[in-house]
Amino acid sequence: MDFQLAIVGGGPAGYTAAECAGKLGMSVVLFEKNSLGGVCLNEGCIPTKTLLYSAKVSDTVRNASKYAVGGGQPEVNLPKVISRKAKVVRKLVLGIKARLSECRVEIVAGEARIVDRNTVECNGETYRCESMILATGSETLVPPIPGLDKAAYWTHREALDCKTLPQSLTIVGGGVIGMEFASFFNSLGVQVTVIEMLDEILRGIDRELAGMLRAEYAKRGVRFLLKTKVTDVDGNGPGEIRVNYENEEGHGSVVSEKMLLSVGRRPVMKGFGLENLGLELTERGNVKVDSHLETSVPGVYACGDLNGVSLLAHTAVKEAETAVRHIAGRGGEMSYRAIPSVVYTNPEVASVGKDEEALKKEGVEYQVIRLPMAFSGRFVAENEGVNGTCKALVGGDGRMLGMHILGNPASELIVMAGMMIEDGRKLSEWKRYVFPHPTVGEIFREL
Amino acid sequence: MDFQLAIVGGGPAGYTAAECAGKLGMSVVLFEKNSLGGVCLNEGCIPTKTLLYSAKVSDTVRNASKYAVGGGQPEVNLPKVISRKAKVVRKLVLGIKARLSECRVEIVAGEARIVDRNTVECNGETYRCESMILATGSETLVPPIPGLDKAAYWTHREALDCKTLPQSLTIVGGGVIGMEFASFFNSLGVQVTVIEMLDEILRGIDRELAGMLRAEYAKRGVRFLLKTKVTDVDGNGPGEIRVNYENEEGHGSVVSEKMLLSVGRRPVMKGFGLENLGLELTERGNVKVDSHLETSVPGVYACGDLNGVSLLAHTAVKEAETAVRHIAGRGGEMSYRAIPSVVYTNPEVASVGKDEEALKKEGVEYQVIRLPMAFSGRFVAENEGVNGTCKALVGGDGRMLGMHILGNPASELIVMAGMMIEDGRKLSEWKRYVFPHPTVGEIFREL
Repeated sequence: MDFQLAIVGGGPAGYTAAECAGKLGMSVVLFEKNSLGGVCLNEGCIPTKTLLYSAKVSDTVRNASKYAVGGGQPEVNLPKVISRKAKVVRKLVLGIKARLSECRVEIVAGEARIVDRNTVECNGETYRCESMILATGSETLVPPIPGLDKAAYWTHREALDCKTLPQSLTIVGGGVIGMEFASFFNSLGVQVTVIEMLDEILRGIDRELAGMLRAEYAKRGVRFLLKTKVTDVDGNGPGEIRVNYENEEGHGSVVSEKMLLSVGRRPVMKGFGLENLGLELTERGNVKVDSHLETSVPGVYACGDLNGVSLLAHTAVKEAETAVRHIAGRGGEMSYRAIPSVVYTNPEVASVGKDEEALKKEGVEYQVIRLPMAFSGRFVAENEGVNGTCKALVGGDGRMLGMHILGNPASELIVMAGMMIEDGRKLSEWKRYVFPHPTVGEIFREL
Repeated sequence: MDFQLAIVGGGPAGYTAAECAGKLGMSVVLFEKNSLGGVCLNEGCIPTKTLLYSAKVSDTVRNASKYAVGGGQPEVNLPKVISRKAKVVRKLVLGIKARLSECRVEIVAGEARIVDRNTVECNGETYRCESMILATGSETLVPPIPGLDKAAYWTHREALDCKTLPQSLTIVGGGVIGMEFASFFNSLGVQVTVIEMLDEILRGIDRELAGMLRAEYAKRGVRFLLKTKVTDVDGNGPGEIRVNYENEEGHGSVVSEKMLLSVGRRPVMKGFGLENLGLELTERGNVKVDSHLETSVPGVYACGDLNGVSLLAHTAVKEAETAVRHIAGRGGEMSYRAIPSVVYTNPEVASVGKDEEALKKEGVEYQVIRLPMAFSGRFVAENEGVNGTCKALVGGDGRMLGMHILGNPASELIVMAGMMIEDGRKLSEWKRYVFPHPTVGEIFREL
């Protein structure tokens, strides 16, 4: 069977590429061994947000009296939360399937194996293609911690499907995944401890905002161990797991009912014949791509987590679009100038562009312009007793270099700052636009 | 006392003008007879949003089980809602006062009286100025309905300060103010009837979305009487008010405990010596201004509701900025191309640019591009059983002409569409930007 484009992997990069190419009239085959939507839709972005929204509803019920509404104590029905999550995922997977069918994309359920740059085998069939997009995504990084192999630890996958709430949970790794689960389980009343090797949680997020978020969760009862290295894990006791660590104060241990491992993810580079392509790799061992996402082998592209550049679903989407445009001869290059990062805690944190650390490292002069979120009347009306910060980093010429927000709905606002940064615009240009009053977004005009 | 700029009225137009001018180093005096912040902050935008947020919290508690959270029935403590509102307003009024003080604006509490284009009197003092910005705002329009003068009806002002919940409420006028109060009182369990003279609620909002919102509130128990004219009001009974009406089906009446009048607002043109300026008026009797908000008398500007153009706080802000820039010789003209409108019901409705009615009237060819909000995974995760629509109107050249959204958080998203419309950009340009995943805003990229 001959196709113009073969896509290996049906996550955000894969399904976006398939839809774009299909819309441009290409004949497309897409291989997915699990469920369409990839990690993002099936066990990542969407399921976590479904759980986190139930947690947010629970927070709202618990804090209702702040807004003069009596509602009693929230009781979260965890099995129902999990089954609702499954329902949301099913609905969205069906949505993607429908969109790909509309574009006449051939979806092959099975494990693809690349033979050469023009040939993929799957389920005993051979597929020929002119171009190929590799989008195999990433998998949980399991570090070589002694004892881990014998311990019944959770990854995000088990955490997303837990039917009974543990009394206590130790989260190893205070990145985005770790903090979103810390937020979820804390809202549900679980005693959470977060162990982070670095001196602050949420690497990649503005240090100041990360610290503010940590302080907020510490106030809510989450225990943080920073600059702390897990030395070994003892998971032999019934219903408990002991995480031993060392830090500046010496050795210690946390005993809890469950342990969640969230130290990072790494590209999936094995099991689908990648080696048969003889692609050039980067120093770090990732697949090397150019600004069109094309690898060293012409006609072969690597999009999404696989290329190791950003490991975010929305980056994958843009990369996939860029690759397909290049295949179709429509030009355009990938820009990483304004890729937002969001932590869906409550409150949310969102960043786009550079942070202070990066600017200092690059020796770029910048100015910090900062406002408390309470500058927005809407924020004050809807966030009783909650603080937040909006922080813009601006270059000498007035251009926006970065925007960092702590406070809801940061996730929905950050893209506006991204638009400005992508286009190299000045902070003063917000004033050109009329923001509806009252909204939280208005704060941009006040910076 | 001599000032470069005198401002009459301390609402959004007035305080924004004062702050802008102060920042540019002008000497500014601002006259306000009531409270800084005007109707918007003291009895409009902000207080309603505070009340509506309590209603939203109540909705969340009531619907918590949809997200697998048990919380029982919400009990809203109305006096506390009202006192929280007062606290929020006080905080924000103090914020404005602080900002104006920082800019060394002289704030005069009292009723100003304009003597001539360079002279204002207040509290027995005479103030001389080079330029003048009139920003006296608007007041509730009270139509000549027989019996109204003897009836104890509410305007938004009394509704915002009601300490006991009525059993039933008739709202005369289904515009934004009417619908926001209908939403609030419906959430709190009041039997609400909305009487609207036109054939649909929310004049100025996309007809289709207005109809969808009406259907949603009808489902929640609000009764709508469209194309219905109030003939007279009988408010003599104890604790009840009878609103008599006529429509296609003949005559009828609604009896309820309270009645809220919200048929519109009109510019405040009397009581401050406007007549002494001899300004040119428009056909409709409003103060005529040019694209810099300057009136027919050089150096005298009219911003905000007073000029009758838009009657929205955010329009007033932009007009004030434009006027001050003109006074300071910094150029720039007011653009009304992309003024968003938001209805803060739950769900919210937001519009920017043209609607279909306007485009048809102007004879502009356009295409409707529409997606259900459920195209966004985040929306699905956070809106169980709730529908919504995102509708773009696009010209023949692909340029965005209008955007209309039903679904939360429409209020925070609409400005992005406004930015595109203001800059005359094409719908396809959304794809240039990376929206964080998952967010509701991503839906723009899918249109």
